[in-house]
Amino acid sequence: MRAEIVSVGTELLLGQIVDTNAPYLSRLLPDFGITMHHRTTVGDNESRLTEALKLALSRSDIVFTIGGLGPTQDDLTKETVAKLVGDEMVIDEESARHMREFFAARGIEMPENNLKQAMGPVRGKILPNPLGTAPGAVFETESGKAIIVLPGPPREFIPMVCERVLPYLRERVGSESGIIRSRILRVVGLGESSVEDTIKRLLKSTNPTVAPYASLGEVQLRITANAANVVEADKLIDEMDRRIVELLGDRVFGRDGQTLEQVVVKTLVRRGLTLALAESCTGGLIANRITDIPGSSATFMAGVVSYSNEAKMNILGVDERLLIEYGAVSEQTARSMAEGARRKLGVDVAVSVTGIAGPAGGTPEKPIGLVYMALASGAGTIAQRHQFAGTRVDVKLRSSQAALDMLRTFLAVNT
Amino acid sequence: MRAEIVSVGTELLLGQIVDTNAPYLSRLLPDFGITMHHRTTVGDNESRLTEALKLALSRSDIVFTIGGLGPTQDDLTKETVAKLVGDEMVIDEESARHMREFFAARGIEMPENNLKQAMGPVRGKILPNPLGTAPGAVFETESGKAIIVLPGPPREFIPMVCERVLPYLRERVGSESGIIRSRILRVVGLGESSVEDTIKRLLKSTNPTVAPYASLGEVQLRITANAANVVEADKLIDEMDRRIVELLGDRVFGRDGQTLEQVVVKTLVRRGLTLALAESCTGGLIANRITDIPGSSATFMAGVVSYSNEAKMNILGVDERLLIEYGAVSEQTARSMAEGARRKLGVDVAVSVTGIAGPAGGTPEKPIGLVYMALASGAGTIAQRHQFAGTRVDVKLRSSQAALDMLRTFLAVNT
Repeated sequence: MRAEIVSVGTELLLGQIVDTNAPYLSRLLPDFGITMHHRTTVGDNESRLTEALKLALSRSDIVFTIGGLGPTQDDLTKETVAKLVGDEMVIDEESARHMREFFAARGIEMPENNLKQAMGPVRGKILPNPLGTAPGAVFETESGKAIIVLPGPPREFIPMVCERVLPYLRERVGSESGIIRSRILRVVGLGESSVEDTIKRLLKSTNPTVAPYASLGEVQLRITANAANVVEADKLIDEMDRRIVELLGDRVFGRDGQTLEQVVVKTLVRRGLTLALAESCTGGLIANRITDIPGSSATFMAGVVSYSNEAKMNILGVDERLLIEYGAVSEQTARSMAEGARRKLGVDVAVSVTGIAGPAGGTPEKPIGLVYMALASGAGTIAQRHQFAGTRVDVKLRSSQAALDMLRTFLAVNT
Repeated sequence: MRAEIVSVGTELLLGQIVDTNAPYLSRLLPDFGITMHHRTTVGDNESRLTEALKLALSRSDIVFTIGGLGPTQDDLTKETVAKLVGDEMVIDEESARHMREFFAARGIEMPENNLKQAMGPVRGKILPNPLGTAPGAVFETESGKAIIVLPGPPREFIPMVCERVLPYLRERVGSESGIIRSRILRVVGLGESSVEDTIKRLLKSTNPTVAPYASLGEVQLRITANAANVVEADKLIDEMDRRIVELLGDRVFGRDGQTLEQVVVKTLVRRGLTLALAESCTGGLIANRITDIPGSSATFMAGVVSYSNEAKMNILGVDERLLIEYGAVSEQTARSMAEGARRKLGVDVAVSVTGIAGPAGGTPEKPIGLVYMALASGAGTIAQRHQFAGTRVDVKLRSSQAALDMLRTFLAVNT
């Protein structure tokens, strides 16, 4: 079975948005034995969209469209698809009701043109949108091919894929054909070339394959296996996973969508430990990452973003003499921040970060990217010194990554 | 003049890489009066690449290919293009020398198959690659159309575009043809349909055009003008900008890359005001956004992420009776947090946010997404109540957006 994606939107075409939806969906299709040979992007233009859809239908069994379901005049995907496959569009009462409730819950009167979003096909079927007002739809051609119409905003697109498209595919495709499955191993604290050097031998494997991909502060290893079924594929992947972990040890912190903050929050909650943060150069980024995790309030008590020296002294109790003698960016200050946060906020573990994120503020002795971090606990205080490269935002991100990893490693050792 | 992009690579097709190159190039083309109507992605497959190129050449004057210039057997873009346009490939001595030097400088013996990368067209011309071993090339068809072949890794692609493609386009397109320029007006505090309703009349304009785009907590209006030169285009854009601002007033907070946090930090610094934050449900996100801005340390003194009630009482001095009587998520607590932060941290302005980000913790009286925020200053304390939709991370983002906008509006009024 063959599928292809037609992404719709002038903003995509003009490069104002980077298309992350199409890659997201593409990664899921091999699990159903569905191959992809083409992807197309067109603007919000009826004739070009029609042409692109005709071409796609001529060579694929399933065509996904992404985008162009908004309430405005230039959103025309659903109407164009309906015309192409010869289906009719009517108001879907369920979607209209959902839309009215959506606006009512916000105390806003629903603009009339929004009702256009509640239109659905007569022959095809509506795919309700759990997080937005625009439902998707499955249209069917006379020869039994499908056009699956999905909304463009990623926060609506991703739940639509998980809750509507995957069940549809499971039903339609079944599990007869061979499948491709993959898993990502996430590695922190090592650069891409050290990771590659360490697992060099494994990179030559052909089934499963192992492909490294480096992002800021992390290296991802994608294991991809080809097998008759999910069980066989997972066996191949598990074995390779084991061999990689044998070589990289605890530098592998998670798999697939698991983030460093998820791992840390989960461990803290399981162990019943409370956490506080004292951030200077990361400016709240670590607290923000921790609090992105549902349930983090069970462990995370408070964070202090002590940007000024006054805040370091007044809230965290850092001694002014330390700041004068060693400076705000020093191991001594990092230690004092962590210890102060632990004492003042009455928590089990406190982590502090202080550094120079740039673009100004560097000196020959303390260059931009120099970052100290410390962790205070009942077992004493440990500290680390890092020198990071990149922009202000890069330094913030790398620092947050290193601080979360320091905490993760501490929790692994001090069980 | 029309152009289109064919991105080549199985990793792109499988979604293992997100294509940021095509959007990058797309953003630069309108300045040359070049329009884009299509973008295509195909895998490393000769026949499908040939088909995609034929189709692209049938409707465009310039076709860019990105990717597939590596040394391995599945990298076949250059060879495929040469065959299609009937050009011959020979070793380009300059590129071969550059490649030998590249390997010599790293003390590595050059693998023989790398020499394939130094092949270039006889009729067309080589585009030397300043940062990699694979040069690009311009191939020309008999009818005078061009296929511009570029490498896929972004760190090679971007310099190639800047140093090779832009000069080529400047020469080829010249300045006879008209140009297209655009500007984005950024709007906060109004939904997409209210914005559209308000400026309905202007959406019908054909030159410049106005196109709305909604993202989380913000609506963007792209004004695009077509004119003989930059001065004329900017005149059209300025006039439309003025008319939009006439209708939307101070809901327009910035233009193009300007963010809400940039506007806020700039105003605070100019006015010599100091800022503190007391965040509960936003969990450090506002502090993180503020500290992403270089120079924010001149105004931002400290932030407190008071996730627990203890932190609200101990650091911010919120009265326990308030928390008991009205709850942590209440206007009273929001006010007390802002006033406490202002007093305890000794700043001019303090902003607080407290709410229920979900996914758990909602009740019928205080549902998920209910957020209170307050701003304390020498002029007194103001508060706002919001009801936001979406996931935990959505509620955090929308709350941070509303809080920054409250601060921006306060600064605009209290001059």
